[in-house]
Amino acid sequence: MYFHVQQLINEIEQDEPDPAAANALQEGLGGQFGEMRTMMQYLFQSINFRGPSAKPYKDLIQGIGTEEISHVELIGTTIARLLDGSPRYNGKPTDPVDKPGSGGATPLEIATHESNIHHYLVGAQGALPVDAAGNPWMGSYVYNSGNLVLDLLYNLMLESTGRLQKCRLYEMTDNKTARSTISYLIVRDQAHENAYAKALETLGVNWRTALPIPKTNAEKFPEVARLVEMGLQSKQYSFDLTNLSEAGKIFQGMSPSNDGTQLDASQQAPEGVPMTIAPERFEEFAPGADPELRALIEATAEMEMADIEATFGRM
Amino acid sequence: MYFHVQQLINEIEQDEPDPAAANALQEGLGGQFGEMRTMMQYLFQSINFRGPSAKPYKDLIQGIGTEEISHVELIGTTIARLLDGSPRYNGKPTDPVDKPGSGGATPLEIATHESNIHHYLVGAQGALPVDAAGNPWMGSYVYNSGNLVLDLLYNLMLESTGRLQKCRLYEMTDNKTARSTISYLIVRDQAHENAYAKALETLGVNWRTALPIPKTNAEKFPEVARLVEMGLQSKQYSFDLTNLSEAGKIFQGMSPSNDGTQLDASQQAPEGVPMTIAPERFEEFAPGADPELRALIEATAEMEMADIEATFGRM
Amino acid sequence: MYFHVQQLINEIEQDEPDPAAANALQEGLGGQFGEMRTMMQYLFQSINFRGPSAKPYKDLIQGIGTEEISHVELIGTTIARLLDGSPRYNGKPTDPVDKPGSGGATPLEIATHESNIHHYLVGAQGALPVDAAGNPWMGSYVYNSGNLVLDLLYNLMLESTGRLQKCRLYEMTDNKTARSTISYLIVRDQAHENAYAKALETLGVNWRTALPIPKTNAEKFPEVARLVEMGLQSKQYSFDLTNLSEAGKIFQGMSPSNDGTQLDASQQAPEGVPMTIAPERFEEFAPGADPELRALIEATAEMEMADIEATFGRM
Amino acid sequence: MYFHVQQLINEIEQDEPDPAAANALQEGLGGQFGEMRTMMQYLFQSINFRGPSAKPYKDLIQGIGTEEISHVELIGTTIARLLDGSPRYNGKPTDPVDKPGSGGATPLEIATHESNIHHYLVGAQGALPVDAAGNPWMGSYVYNSGNLVLDLLYNLMLESTGRLQKCRLYEMTDNKTARSTISYLIVRDQAHENAYAKALETLGVNWRTALPIPKTNAEKFPEVARLVEMGLQSKQYSFDLTNLSEAGKIFQGMSPSNDGTQLDASQQAPEGVPMTIAPERFEEFAPGADPELRALIEATAEMEMADIEATFGRM
Amino acid sequence: MYFHVQQLINEIEQDEPDPAAANALQEGLGGQFGEMRTMMQYLFQSINFRGPSAKPYKDLIQGIGTEEISHVELIGTTIARLLDGSPRYNGKPTDPVDKPGSGGATPLEIATHESNIHHYLVGAQGALPVDAAGNPWMGSYVYNSGNLVLDLLYNLMLESTGRLQKCRLYEMTDNKTARSTISYLIVRDQAHENAYAKALETLGVNWRTALPIPKTNAEKFPEVARLVEMGLQSKQYSFDLTNLSEAGKIFQGMSPSNDGTQLDASQQAPEGVPMTIAPERFEEFAPGADPELRALIEATAEMEMADIEATFGRM
Amino acid sequence: MYFHVQQLINEIEQDEPDPAAANALQEGLGGQFGEMRTMMQYLFQSINFRGPSAKPYKDLIQGIGTEEISHVELIGTTIARLLDGSPRYNGKPTDPVDKPGSGGATPLEIATHESNIHHYLVGAQGALPVDAAGNPWMGSYVYNSGNLVLDLLYNLMLESTGRLQKCRLYEMTDNKTARSTISYLIVRDQAHENAYAKALETLGVNWRTALPIPKTNAEKFPEVARLVEMGLQSKQYSFDLTNLSEAGKIFQGMSPSNDGTQLDASQQAPEGVPMTIAPERFEEFAPGADPELRALIEATAEMEMADIEATFGRM
Repeated sequence: MYFHVQQLINEIEQDEPDPAAANALQEGLGGQFGEMRTMMQYLFQSINFRGPSAKPYKDLIQGIGTEEISHVELIGTTIARLLDGSPRYNGKPTDPVDKPGSGGATPLEIATHESNIHHYLVGAQGALPVDAAGNPWMGSYVYNSGNLVLDLLYNLMLESTGRLQKCRLYEMTDNKTARSTISYLIVRDQAHENAYAKALETLGVNWRTALPIPKTNAEKFPEVARLVEMGLQSKQYSFDLTNLSEAGKIFQGMSPSNDGTQLDASQQAPEGVPMTIAPERFEEFAPGADPELRALIEATAEMEMADIEATFGRM
Repeated sequence: MYFHVQQLINEIEQDEPDPAAANALQEGLGGQFGEMRTMMQYLFQSINFRGPSAKPYKDLIQGIGTEEISHVELIGTTIARLLDGSPRYNGKPTDPVDKPGSGGATPLEIATHESNIHHYLVGAQGALPVDAAGNPWMGSYVYNSGNLVLDLLYNLMLESTGRLQKCRLYEMTDNKTARSTISYLIVRDQAHENAYAKALETLGVNWRTALPIPKTNAEKFPEVARLVEMGLQSKQYSFDLTNLSEAGKIFQGMSPSNDGTQLDASQQAPEGVPMTIAPERFEEFAPGADPELRALIEATAEMEMADIEATFGRM
Repeated sequence: MYFHVQQLINEIEQDEPDPAAANALQEGLGGQFGEMRTMMQYLFQSINFRGPSAKPYKDLIQGIGTEEISHVELIGTTIARLLDGSPRYNGKPTDPVDKPGSGGATPLEIATHESNIHHYLVGAQGALPVDAAGNPWMGSYVYNSGNLVLDLLYNLMLESTGRLQKCRLYEMTDNKTARSTISYLIVRDQAHENAYAKALETLGVNWRTALPIPKTNAEKFPEVARLVEMGLQSKQYSFDLTNLSEAGKIFQGMSPSNDGTQLDASQQAPEGVPMTIAPERFEEFAPGADPELRALIEATAEMEMADIEATFGRM
Repeated sequence: MYFHVQQLINEIEQDEPDPAAANALQEGLGGQFGEMRTMMQYLFQSINFRGPSAKPYKDLIQGIGTEEISHVELIGTTIARLLDGSPRYNGKPTDPVDKPGSGGATPLEIATHESNIHHYLVGAQGALPVDAAGNPWMGSYVYNSGNLVLDLLYNLMLESTGRLQKCRLYEMTDNKTARSTISYLIVRDQAHENAYAKALETLGVNWRTALPIPKTNAEKFPEVARLVEMGLQSKQYSFDLTNLSEAGKIFQGMSPSNDGTQLDASQQAPEGVPMTIAPERFEEFAPGADPELRALIEATAEMEMADIEATFGRM
Repeated sequence: MYFHVQQLINEIEQDEPDPAAANALQEGLGGQFGEMRTMMQYLFQSINFRGPSAKPYKDLIQGIGTEEISHVELIGTTIARLLDGSPRYNGKPTDPVDKPGSGGATPLEIATHESNIHHYLVGAQGALPVDAAGNPWMGSYVYNSGNLVLDLLYNLMLESTGRLQKCRLYEMTDNKTARSTISYLIVRDQAHENAYAKALETLGVNWRTALPIPKTNAEKFPEVARLVEMGLQSKQYSFDLTNLSEAGKIFQGMSPSNDGTQLDASQQAPEGVPMTIAPERFEEFAPGADPELRALIEATAEMEMADIEATFGRM
Repeated sequence: MYFHVQQLINEIEQDEPDPAAANALQEGLGGQFGEMRTMMQYLFQSINFRGPSAKPYKDLIQGIGTEEISHVELIGTTIARLLDGSPRYNGKPTDPVDKPGSGGATPLEIATHESNIHHYLVGAQGALPVDAAGNPWMGSYVYNSGNLVLDLLYNLMLESTGRLQKCRLYEMTDNKTARSTISYLIVRDQAHENAYAKALETLGVNWRTALPIPKTNAEKFPEVARLVEMGLQSKQYSFDLTNLSEAGKIFQGMSPSNDGTQLDASQQAPEGVPMTIAPERFEEFAPGADPELRALIEATAEMEMADIEATFGRM
């Protein structure tokens, strides 16, 4: 059973809207090696896990899988912020929907020139469950052979490929909104690489000098370096409210990435950061601009707090 | 940010393995109107939500979306249990993998006669992210127009279709393992129907006699009736650890299903039930039968509890 | 612009329900070489047609394309009839939905044993836009290169493959409902083969002895033989209400199938046969069994004829 | 059974070629909420319809479904016109195919810079059965649960989403060719919203102030306003040559869109407008530029009118 | 550039037709971890390979990739043999196509009861490019990140998963035709595991006791044991006619599978076995039963050998 | 069984990188009518071939199929060359990965502006198994009805469509690297058109003036003209090391393309040209820039030649 807090797992920096960066980031969300895939893969591996004596391995996968849901939330929100308001940003007029075409340009003209027109046409300047080339996410991405060594080996390869793609994404854009999330995920992907590599160590493999993959200087990216200094690549969170996770039996000792750090599974979860709700976009009819409708929404929202508190207790 | 507890959201009854029922249930997991779809749809609608003054609507969607992750976990586990051990159950020999073909039949012969051979060949007698006809789940299922009325209308239709399909599933099998989960989801789908219907009421629609859909006697199914008597069709859980959800501003008053109940959003979450880990299946090489490997796994699992407690605190 | 008459293009014989035959026929509806494909391919070729001086070729394609919509209607209806009531037919109990499981079997148990469970679970014992292996129809099937010779060559191959598959379907079932439609389509596919072959003759090809394809004794199938005697393989209908079609400039002279018949494009359309509406299926909740709802439907249906006539004129 | 007239359902205005607008319009043709989808969905719902006493509902769906085929024809033709000649329009040289590369640019260079290269490479500057992101249309889009209330609810949502996307398309381009078709479809989508909303009213729902969706000022778009003044949003055509449609039993009384109009189902069909055939495009080898071939085509086209008239009667 | 010899890479044993086994084997041909995938993946990795100094790694991948084409040929032929004549074998009548239905059964009745109806309806009792659940092979399966360590790691996982699935296939059927090919591929997959594992050893990994995967007793399957005794799991063929392959710089020394064998890359290719051509199947209209057509085919085939020899030289 | 030589089937000219041309060429590689499709289609047709007396037809298909593998290799390599180094070529800075963003632009910024971002993000500036619109190749493209006439007719249409698309590609770019491969494939596609047309002639068709398709002046493209003068459009290679091919029984006599040439099947294969290995790309982490890793690779590559020669013999 899952719970939610109204917080993001990491801070998203403010910067200008950037629909090209937003589209590139879609690979990290809905791509074959993106967060929707890791989330679903680990969820299925946890559900179908075999071998009661191997519980620490299940707990390791379950913990990372739970984190991936928060990564979906993080990267999805990042994409939405990069798209939000982008028609205005690119110098196009911001005519309200009622006056299309005045001044020679149209409110959503940008949509026909940017990477994925669906961001403006099917969605309302928000994230989509597709990759950076517009292909919808597919269930056939999920790998769960049931063989423990193979599942762990696949997961190691999956996290490493995710990290490789995010390093390439870092090189594609210098938008700070995009890079703050990309950098965070580079480091967390390495933590997950470490987790699966360590699990394979307990099963007989010696990685020696092979890790991390890609074996490069991602740590020279300044935002990445800052997070590495904080040791985020060597932490495993359980996200387990019942504190029953035995993942720490595996995630301990020296990092297989050979960076001299100790693996640490002692923390339940990182501190979150507040979430906000995006503004209305009239040109998208989102959430729907009718004054009468708004009055209804506000009437609902302005219900007596007394009633609410009676219902929910302290908030 | 999301958290997990090592509990299922509802009890799964014990019964014989039944791979045909397992396959039928795949529609409820990976089908176009199954739990993976509701989970992802509400997650994207929450991430991309517009209109700060409409927070109660976002909280409603977020709360249901969080519940759907637990439904994925529940129905996935149900499918895995229905498949687990089915080669033996159907009268096939249970020869260890080392002696294939002895006695004239082979350990996994069942796989070529049952609904989805992938349950035995790609997975190891576990759930898959596909529907009951074997089609992989697709990101293009997710609907998130950004227009609030449309998103709510779609969600109402989605929950109602899910409930319709589960009523049909109930009629396809009398396996108790299958029916315990089907019945629970019929009732919770109705609760979500109520939630979206109520939200649309606040925006101007009067459903009068149209709900629930399908407008039938699902409550005459005994397992469903029991849950309806407990009022589960009229409860909304927030699953919100921070108690910031304002969904109760919407989910209150008389049920739009005209069953005379009061809608109730006062509970954070239902009580969970314990989870177990499935046994090994040698004929699937899952998790992998090598004695040396097992010794390694057990060595990891038998680490000193003292060390663990030092790391994790009380467990 | 298109019009409809409430008639089927050919009679469907009565026989027992037969879900296996229904599923096989799905290839002829939603398969890569089925009627949805021919319909869409010719519609796109008509829309995108180039060359004002080549109007007879466009009219030929447009006329066949219009006929294919009626074929979709015919084969879809045939599938629906083969499925309708099949749970009862196969010896399963016909318990009303309110008493599931009594007598040991469940109302829709058949669904888990037949070819495509979606016929009972996603649809309500009706046709689906999928092929006989359950794959959804795809737009990428449509071929429209814009090059006239290539488009005609493809169309000839397409009709011939459709005819080949229907000959194989004929051999898979002896259900009369299925065979009446299969046989009709075998003959009409040959008519379309003749149309495209003749069009290629006007552009330089001499087919000599190569046609029809498959070059076999389909005419020895008794139902096919009867239709061939009526000359249906050598008729082209325009389905053009404005009588502007010039397809007869091409579809004339001796048949390229070497059967000694003259091609004849003089008839606008065949005589249709009446359509009926299928009965309710309570076990599918279709159209929805609630008495109150039925009363509403009937109230609408029983509106004063006087009112209707005032609105519509003579009916 | 279906018929065709050589007329478009609405006039397409003349304007410059505009491949970006053409690509955006593909969503309205081959997108998940486009005309191919409505056409196929209503065709399947008609074929599989259950409940003889509910014939007016079937007739309503069948009538709209028939109209959608004409919409496919209309929007497909619009896309083809927007693409036709676009290589020349954008200032690229118009070298015949025999002299590629002279002057530094190539005849189809535009293809590598525009939204969907397939418009020039797979098709010959014509419409494709794909959406605006290039995804092929899929049969899995079609919804037909068999439950009447659910099917109507889905249809209402589908038409509203189609209308929402077309409002966004209007904002993306000011090309008159594109806007004339977009505006017409906005208004007809609203008519279909009204039809399904009214049908749900007869089954118990009171929409009060919720319609139309999106609840906005589309009527302030000048082209839309003109059509609304003509009342096209409140008309239902039967397209039924046999005048047996009972859709008028439902489509009557005040509009559920609260615009003060009376719903009117008295007209069989709108007046059509003439169709034309697009010119040849040598750079696409369409229809195929060989002089010998042309002579053959023209020989066929110039057949004695006497012969034709003998065959077809008056034309 | 590639060449072909008219020989299969391994002998296929004779046994009865078995369409269920044929369908299971489709996973090994067109599945996500089947031979089409390995073939295409290694072909793309060879084409896109970077790093002139790393030529031995490219040669290793190229050599395995070339072998996989022969594996596609082998498993495809095996499937075709298992299907060929299966209508007759299963006790169905073998009426010629001209007399369908006589005796109460139809020539292809088997098709509606077996795993994939397309084997009889779309193909003519032959192999298809799909997996065992009927999903078509997809280009998105191919993994080629460009990062050498990752590509090798993926390849190791891919071969191991292929081997795991083939071990499961072995347990699903005891048909000798099926098992002779399954066993051969189990052993060759292990050879490829060894190749990629050894390549990763040169880059820093020490596999110690982790290999092979699945770490089981596949060698206790008698057919597998026989091949292992011959050392086929420790041989790498170059299939390189120019003898330029440097794969032997990697594939040498002790096997990483810890079976005590020496890796051996000294052989260019295994000895092949003769190929045969399948008989005609009249019920499938394959290759097409018309006597006139046959006469033409035979006339072509009986051309003077003198002419042929003049053209081709010695044969 | 297949073999490889380390040679390309045709020379690729040197020119500047051109990612737009690279993307266009993807249609010829992974498109519905590209080389992966012809390769797979002919491979399956060869495997499933029926009719021992029709061996020359099988040999014809097998020979062309083998050539298509080399075409996949050729066009894939061409695409890789067009992409290789393109970030630098387009005036973007070539900062090493360690200094992203310096100078205001990022190393892979080009990726977000070019046709398919996957060329830089999923691959490392290399070819992908997708078409020019980014759709992955699908097994459902493969056509193999088993009926000989139909299979040959389809193959003729397939080669002609491939040739049509390549003619359009020629018009889209004047990059010499792209055109050298496009031109070669135009001519070889015509050779294959001739092969299938001739095979159909032996079965009764007289093509008279209909060929080649497209019936145009491709021979006026200078690069094409040069190859036509060399007669490459009238040659069939067997690629058969055992010289058992009987394809020459069909591929002989006058060309059906009416160009006055004699068909010639006397040559086993064309002369190949040397292959090279692409340089490293640090910005793609390909093959992986770590100095330690490089040392290991070089150590492997610099193994004693004496050892190698002992193992492989003369190289």
